[in-house]
Amino acid sequence: MIKIAVLTSGGDSPGMNAAIRGVVRRSIYNDIDVYGIYHGYHGLINNDIEKLEMGSVGDTIHRGGTILHTSRSEEFRTEKGQEQGAQNLKSLGIDGVVVIGGDGSFKGAEKLSQHGISVMGVPGTIDNDIPCTEMTVGFDTATNTVIEAIDRIRDTATSHERIFVIEVMGRDCGNIALWAGLAGGAESILIPEFEYDMDEVLDRLKQGYNRGKKHSIIVVAEGVSTGSELSEQIKEKSGLDTKVTVLGHVQRGGTPTAYDRMLGSRLGAKAVDLLLEGESNKMVGLNNNKITSVDLTEVFLEKEKVDYDLYELGKSLSI
Amino acid sequence: MIKIAVLTSGGDSPGMNAAIRGVVRRSIYNDIDVYGIYHGYHGLINNDIEKLEMGSVGDTIHRGGTILHTSRSEEFRTEKGQEQGAQNLKSLGIDGVVVIGGDGSFKGAEKLSQHGISVMGVPGTIDNDIPCTEMTVGFDTATNTVIEAIDRIRDTATSHERIFVIEVMGRDCGNIALWAGLAGGAESILIPEFEYDMDEVLDRLKQGYNRGKKHSIIVVAEGVSTGSELSEQIKEKSGLDTKVTVLGHVQRGGTPTAYDRMLGSRLGAKAVDLLLEGESNKMVGLNNNKITSVDLTEVFLEKEKVDYDLYELGKSLSI
Amino acid sequence: MIKIAVLTSGGDSPGMNAAIRGVVRRSIYNDIDVYGIYHGYHGLINNDIEKLEMGSVGDTIHRGGTILHTSRSEEFRTEKGQEQGAQNLKSLGIDGVVVIGGDGSFKGAEKLSQHGISVMGVPGTIDNDIPCTEMTVGFDTATNTVIEAIDRIRDTATSHERIFVIEVMGRDCGNIALWAGLAGGAESILIPEFEYDMDEVLDRLKQGYNRGKKHSIIVVAEGVSTGSELSEQIKEKSGLDTKVTVLGHVQRGGTPTAYDRMLGSRLGAKAVDLLLEGESNKMVGLNNNKITSVDLTEVFLEKEKVDYDLYELGKSLSI
Amino acid sequence: MIKIAVLTSGGDSPGMNAAIRGVVRRSIYNDIDVYGIYHGYHGLINNDIEKLEMGSVGDTIHRGGTILHTSRSEEFRTEKGQEQGAQNLKSLGIDGVVVIGGDGSFKGAEKLSQHGISVMGVPGTIDNDIPCTEMTVGFDTATNTVIEAIDRIRDTATSHERIFVIEVMGRDCGNIALWAGLAGGAESILIPEFEYDMDEVLDRLKQGYNRGKKHSIIVVAEGVSTGSELSEQIKEKSGLDTKVTVLGHVQRGGTPTAYDRMLGSRLGAKAVDLLLEGESNKMVGLNNNKITSVDLTEVFLEKEKVDYDLYELGKSLSI
Repeated sequence: MIKIAVLTSGGDSPGMNAAIRGVVRRSIYNDIDVYGIYHGYHGLINNDIEKLEMGSVGDTIHRGGTILHTSRSEEFRTEKGQEQGAQNLKSLGIDGVVVIGGDGSFKGAEKLSQHGISVMGVPGTIDNDIPCTEMTVGFDTATNTVIEAIDRIRDTATSHERIFVIEVMGRDCGNIALWAGLAGGAESILIPEFEYDMDEVLDRLKQGYNRGKKHSIIVVAEGVSTGSELSEQIKEKSGLDTKVTVLGHVQRGGTPTAYDRMLGSRLGAKAVDLLLEGESNKMVGLNNNKITSVDLTEVFLEKEKVDYDLYELGKSLSI
Repeated sequence: MIKIAVLTSGGDSPGMNAAIRGVVRRSIYNDIDVYGIYHGYHGLINNDIEKLEMGSVGDTIHRGGTILHTSRSEEFRTEKGQEQGAQNLKSLGIDGVVVIGGDGSFKGAEKLSQHGISVMGVPGTIDNDIPCTEMTVGFDTATNTVIEAIDRIRDTATSHERIFVIEVMGRDCGNIALWAGLAGGAESILIPEFEYDMDEVLDRLKQGYNRGKKHSIIVVAEGVSTGSELSEQIKEKSGLDTKVTVLGHVQRGGTPTAYDRMLGSRLGAKAVDLLLEGESNKMVGLNNNKITSVDLTEVFLEKEKVDYDLYELGKSLSI
Repeated sequence: MIKIAVLTSGGDSPGMNAAIRGVVRRSIYNDIDVYGIYHGYHGLINNDIEKLEMGSVGDTIHRGGTILHTSRSEEFRTEKGQEQGAQNLKSLGIDGVVVIGGDGSFKGAEKLSQHGISVMGVPGTIDNDIPCTEMTVGFDTATNTVIEAIDRIRDTATSHERIFVIEVMGRDCGNIALWAGLAGGAESILIPEFEYDMDEVLDRLKQGYNRGKKHSIIVVAEGVSTGSELSEQIKEKSGLDTKVTVLGHVQRGGTPTAYDRMLGSRLGAKAVDLLLEGESNKMVGLNNNKITSVDLTEVFLEKEKVDYDLYELGKSLSI
Repeated sequence: MIKIAVLTSGGDSPGMNAAIRGVVRRSIYNDIDVYGIYHGYHGLINNDIEKLEMGSVGDTIHRGGTILHTSRSEEFRTEKGQEQGAQNLKSLGIDGVVVIGGDGSFKGAEKLSQHGISVMGVPGTIDNDIPCTEMTVGFDTATNTVIEAIDRIRDTATSHERIFVIEVMGRDCGNIALWAGLAGGAESILIPEFEYDMDEVLDRLKQGYNRGKKHSIIVVAEGVSTGSELSEQIKEKSGLDTKVTVLGHVQRGGTPTAYDRMLGSRLGAKAVDLLLEGESNKMVGLNNNKITSVDLTEVFLEKEKVDYDLYELGKSLSI
């Protein structure tokens, strides 16, 4: 291994910059040249690649988003695009690439490896929907952003004694809704992994109301229902005043938390270490408080599972 | 003046608790009994009134919402409701009421005064849409909440190089959009007070794009257009990828800023001072860095004007 | 098990309220009466005990500190005090107590168990200095508080191009310094677990300075040196302008993060579950992403170890 | 006026970047070339001057500190240094300079004007200690930083039922202590402008204690006493457990608030407008909600006065 490059791909997430910094500084610490590929696979094909120095990642650990930018690339889905990408790297003498992103980004990495480039995946997405790692870079920040919003809405919900439906991100994976709902003290949490029973939701609302609860907050993952549809349903069936808030893209941004900066730093550095050891086609992850690695094929085979105990815990605590 | 009461009415706003605290403690400091009316005019009619002590407002200055709760009351729009409210106060020997809220709440106060109760208005609303005062309690916090959201969205906008439309509160008054747009560095700010020219908006987007701007943020007050309608229009006419975020009720909540705590404290205390001096039917306000007062009739006659200089400033700085 | 009580003891930490809420609601969910003991063991001896309801912990999950208050009790160190405490519980028919706190608090719990009360420990301390659990409740919030301060100081450090020494909590355990230093991007991190070499610290400063680094931040745990002593040493030996900030008690407070609310909720609920299963003299903890339990005797025997890999990582990333 | 330059000098403050952005963009909007002088007067003498473009201030409005850096310059106190500075500007064809900073920085500007350069001052300092303007850029952010710290400390103060002394910035001017103390709900506020009576402070503590107050917070400006000295005194005389926190440099940094971004933007733009109108030797400021200007000589003659009404208000509300 002589030269390493790093790119971010797919949706951005807070902590990606810490991961980039981890890759860059660990490389330089090991006297390895390191390059930044801008705009993900799109930039890889278009040779938007630049040598990075120590200072390139100075004052970035606390910034949201990704200094390397990201984009989606249709072209890289083609054999020709992949070939071109690999060629660009080889021209620069780069033989290893760290890919920071999600599932789809790792699929791209796998393709790249078939053209003779060593690849290492770093799980970076706010959704925490990647198997084989307890956490993904960005999830902790997103969860904190959501609970801040819940805290704010609780203020006004309490003052007006209303029901609030909060729609959060999560098409297939309910982790943001589940964690933020639990940490935000929501009365009900609806996620794609488990069927919900509208009667139960209404029952909880009524029970709370009868016990003198001043407000109720329902967190719903976008994969279950839009906030407004759910809100309409509740209004119709319960007759209670219901408001809706869709958090949207604020969930992607913001200064990363300590957890995400730490996780990004550790994973980024480990990805370099493994490339230097001659490994390829793996994803680094956090398991049992240690940084581990697993074959990409295994990541593709498994499916992230939501912790059912947490779901049950939510029910018992929000009575 | 022997006894004073305080209520919050209409939409809640951060800093209302500081104003309540100001009323309560300034009263007790002057050896005056002070009462809290819960749930606004609704509670006034239903005699939901309680004597408050020093400790009743302890540890509340930093809390969002209103510890007295608020609500809308159809009943208080009737002569009978107003009569009942005044009667409830008289039964307790209360001869002065501080009403914290907006325009509509002050109309209610005026009605109350016609039944022999002295009233004093404190402008509390996130919209900063009340004339005769430079600021209303809650506006500064709401503006900061919006720029936090803009800062977050900018992270992801920069990473993806996209256009973001952010819809903020403001049906008739564009102050939140204007201030937050300016402070957030938005490319375009659309407010109800001034016609906007879609071609100009598109021109600014294109100019920025051509100059290499990595993202564009457009802030629109809800009174102008919904975020999604505007976003669709832009997408159609420019062909650029446009995302929309509707901030919604998060704008109402949150820990009040220093400014709002200070303003609420000053206004609440001044309202008590004026009642003690025998004044009535006035609103306290901030003008020229001093706490002033003005007749409610004048408040009703005038209309809050948005500062045109600020609007122009926005255009010159976001080029 | 018929009745359960909960107390907080020792230094308070953010997330303790989530743990209390977890204990209370999980008990009520299981139709068990639950009591709050105020002011820790001091209140236990003085019978400062109150039955808690669902609503007692409403709107508390997002508050810092502990609603049950805490204190240190000399009296409870005596046999007589312990006897009195157990007696008070028995009079109320309470046979199980959840103790939220640190090492010392668990020693008290053990004493209590010797008087016939079942006890369960929940690790709550900002220091993350308790063995047999990956995390303690409050550590994540404290770490985030420290990096917020580092981010602020970096602003001014960059503007003035200065060296800043930041003293953080940690008498025997360097976890706050290590995590926050890493996540804050500090140039050097000094912790009690490992000897530091002043020459190396100075070398790093000089290297950075020569490479054009605009500022340097050194994080030191209070157990190593006071910030001012270290700052004086550096000034003397390097001649560089050095400023010092002692973060102090701000590290203990603040709205708990999602992580700490979640951890507190899970641990509190699990403590109840174990008491109901007839367990005693254990501490619940987080291991491998699961809530586990371990005998208190084991907790007393082991010593929290700082992760050496993290320490090394810090050195490689802050070059 | 053909070319304008901008520099920041003295202590940095949050919002300085908004002011720089205001200067830069308003200049370009008026088709005027604009230059940045790095490192204040030191850089002016050393010709550390660079032409700025629209993009130079992109994504800076939300950053703390100053992108132009700042420093103190002994050399600029000499006639020779001033001559050199003016000469450097003239060589570049720059005939007007906007100086963002405090009192001392404006004295430097005056010197510069004596060498034929038009100058305009923008009040930027966290202390709000400049006469002829209601507010300075940075004060609002600093005040909010202090109340965040007070809020955190209140959590732990409440849990432990202790007295906390918080030392804040302010050698000659008590504005930070006064505003943050009032907004933070402090029990006592000690500022350099008014003598304090230790017996009164102790009386308030005892009264609160007797009324069941769970904690007391005393805010002291550094110009009155160090926190530890005051804490020692209170401990000695009252026998109560007293802790101290010195906020230090965290007060200077952080993301600027909406208020400071707005104020900085308005003042920076106005400074350009006035230079273009041929004005010089003035300071722009905020008065009665409008941007105004005043001769520097007047600024030097007057002295910032703390609002005595606020001081009295604090006493009446913290009973």
